[in-house]
Amino acid sequence: MKKVAVILSGCGYLDGAEIRESVLTLLALDINGIDYNIFAPDMTQHHVVNHITGVPDQSASRNVLEEAGRIARGKVTPITEINVEEYDALVIPGGFGVAKNLSSFAFKGSIGEIEPEVLAVLKSFRLSNKPIGAICISPALLALAFGENKPTLTIGQHAETATEIEKTGSIHQICATNECVIDKTNLLVTTPAYMDDQANLRDVFQGISKLVKAVVELSK
Amino acid sequence: MKKVAVILSGCGYLDGAEIRESVLTLLALDINGIDYNIFAPDMTQHHVVNHITGVPDQSASRNVLEEAGRIARGKVTPITEINVEEYDALVIPGGFGVAKNLSSFAFKGSIGEIEPEVLAVLKSFRLSNKPIGAICISPALLALAFGENKPTLTIGQHAETATEIEKTGSIHQICATNECVIDKTNLLVTTPAYMDDQANLRDVFQGISKLVKAVVELSK
Repeated sequence: MKKVAVILSGCGYLDGAEIRESVLTLLALDINGIDYNIFAPDMTQHHVVNHITGVPDQSASRNVLEEAGRIARGKVTPITEINVEEYDALVIPGGFGVAKNLSSFAFKGSIGEIEPEVLAVLKSFRLSNKPIGAICISPALLALAFGENKPTLTIGQHAETATEIEKTGSIHQICATNECVIDKTNLLVTTPAYMDDQANLRDVFQGISKLVKAVVELSK
Repeated sequence: MKKVAVILSGCGYLDGAEIRESVLTLLALDINGIDYNIFAPDMTQHHVVNHITGVPDQSASRNVLEEAGRIARGKVTPITEINVEEYDALVIPGGFGVAKNLSSFAFKGSIGEIEPEVLAVLKSFRLSNKPIGAICISPALLALAFGENKPTLTIGQHAETATEIEKTGSIHQICATNECVIDKTNLLVTTPAYMDDQANLRDVFQGISKLVKAVVELSK
């Protein structure tokens, strides 16, 4: 039985992991008979955003690991404790948490930095020749980490973000929500999901399902 | 095109709406071509629970509507503004928020009370002969509201909760996670979902998909 590590960045698309993408990733894994464990960094979120008004609540503070525990139903492990040898692949759902907590891509774009413990995990999977799937804005992490290898990635049709990603050396490919882009050389699979705010949930699920299948296929 | 109202009770199964059940409800609606709007009460949560330790954080306070907005991606309306005439049916995902925020079932069982604005919506759908689907612990709401009509409901195989539900006059029927129970007389559909903590996500999705189809079928 294949086993995948999933990294979450909180709980809520404006300050953490995109909830729907996270759940649909777990559903796609379960439907395909793939075991998984969930990881998150044990750190304070960059900020907490009211998801109705879109305004940050300066008085509030939340922990990425604890909030990820809401999606994980308590079964989440600090990312520093991951043992890459146990897993066949890595999958990272999207949400602004990826660009605000796991990295500074939301603020610095192509010159942003990845949190050291997250970068160590990405590099470890790459060095072990184990595939990585990245959803929504998460391909930005792959661009920051592996841009010099000129990976082919998608961020859907979001021109501004695609431009930042290409500044890292990565090649951006336009992709529909219900599809994914497979880079066989670099063992990277990406799908746009909610990079399109108006996407249908069924298309998001189809794209994520294709990504999960492609990631597992590459791990053979 | 059919249109369904969805009521959420927060964001996180220990103090709000069960996240996975909520997302899979929206996915099942979307796959079946059913339009929906999401509602939640604009009230303070009963408490905030750390989803890793399971311990309530006495210093924290969160609003049910704002937290539901994380799952709803901001598109959530106060439940007092619902216009029942616009909808063909109502669906309520589970999570302790149903039993702690929408009602006091978690603390008082069969003598618990439903928040007045939530009870008003339940009664309005019932009086309009529009079906209601309830997932996981949400059938407890139906028992509290409609027990005197002797509805047939399921809470899966959770004996203790089933006993409380039967005290209201309701009839409890054992049901597998990937199935649902249909009460054609009272136009109520229920499925256990995460009443079984160890349930597979694919079975939860199958049960919820069957519930959504049954609810829409009853609305014809």
